[in-house]
Amino acid sequence: MVKSVVLLSGGLDSAVAATIAVSKGECAFLHINYGQRTEAKELDSFNRIAEHFKIQKRLVTDISYLKQVGGSALTDERIDVPPADLDNKEIPITYVPFRNAHLLSIAISWAEVLGAKEVYIGAVEEDSSGYPDCRAEFFKAFEKAASLGTRPETQIKIITPLINMRKSEIVKEGIRLSAPLQFTWSCYKDSSEACGECDSCLLRLRGFKEAEAIDPIPYKAKPL
Amino acid sequence: MVKSVVLLSGGLDSAVAATIAVSKGECAFLHINYGQRTEAKELDSFNRIAEHFKIQKRLVTDISYLKQVGGSALTDERIDVPPADLDNKEIPITYVPFRNAHLLSIAISWAEVLGAKEVYIGAVEEDSSGYPDCRAEFFKAFEKAASLGTRPETQIKIITPLINMRKSEIVKEGIRLSAPLQFTWSCYKDSSEACGECDSCLLRLRGFKEAEAIDPIPYKAKPL
Repeated sequence: MVKSVVLLSGGLDSAVAATIAVSKGECAFLHINYGQRTEAKELDSFNRIAEHFKIQKRLVTDISYLKQVGGSALTDERIDVPPADLDNKEIPITYVPFRNAHLLSIAISWAEVLGAKEVYIGAVEEDSSGYPDCRAEFFKAFEKAASLGTRPETQIKIITPLINMRKSEIVKEGIRLSAPLQFTWSCYKDSSEACGECDSCLLRLRGFKEAEAIDPIPYKAKPL
Repeated sequence: MVKSVVLLSGGLDSAVAATIAVSKGECAFLHINYGQRTEAKELDSFNRIAEHFKIQKRLVTDISYLKQVGGSALTDERIDVPPADLDNKEIPITYVPFRNAHLLSIAISWAEVLGAKEVYIGAVEEDSSGYPDCRAEFFKAFEKAASLGTRPETQIKIITPLINMRKSEIVKEGIRLSAPLQFTWSCYKDSSEACGECDSCLLRLRGFKEAEAIDPIPYKAKPL
């Protein structure tokens, strides 16, 4: 009996969230391709992490219609991924409009079919890029919508174990739990090595630096 | 400037909802293939209705991953579409788990990119098949989640003009507004003519009968 459906992009945060979920009960892993630039790399990370945890139930789905919808540097190749600016207080152009609602909808549907009671998502509100769909109050509202929009006996909790953590705390938690961080991928640019320059790379590198730990993945450049 | 994104399956209800939306301002039409048996027919209906209203902005997306998720007679060919039972009080096996959340997520994302302020969906709570994701309280909860999960300036209303109508009232409203009912398709089975036997055909035929109107589409059999 599957207890939890885990959304696993293959990034650092979702790998740590998955490690927490696996420690609590049987999991099914869900990966979603939304036409992002780095999908091939992310899917590879997903498969390595799923192998690592010997997960039987896996689902890889495609919502690359988000490319048709556009409006984000992550899904529209005409919009450049900007250089990092971790002090930016605006919502960055890498925001994919309402993306997490799509991920959660798939996770909830699959959880309802499997009879799972929980959905894990490694979203981070603190120390994050400022995406509105990464906020705790969004997840709370979506959980309520899911309760009303599924069978009466289906009551699925959306679990966000990292929501209030700083990146350095996520790194520490991952190391403490022996999360397979060596298989993760966070870079927004498509390349064989992480660029070390985009928002996502800088956040990750800052997290490892503050945690006084070594990031096990290779970088083209390490500005921190 | 697009005012509303309209979810248009090509069925009777969504065609009437679209007719109402078009009467209020500029619309963009959205059709979603979710791997249902009758998709080819529905897409044809969508295109005819969009042509009828001379809609420029159209988006056709594919979420046939719902076939991978399964759990419904509409998306899993191993599960038969059962004979109609309009008195059934259980949630029927044609329920596609949490389907409307997927449709709304795409509509909200596209509306945010277009700057549209409304999403129309022709869902019906009264006189319907008893799907939990067709209830007014689900739409209210989802609207709140959408408000929290998008940019602060994005405040999209989910408009359900048919939610409390009986099928016969929808038929009457469609006729009153000259909705292009001749292009619509409601049957759950894949065939060149509507079967006249499934839940959806029976609901539709009962609606026309109670409205004392003639359904303009052809049927294989008309039991009512």
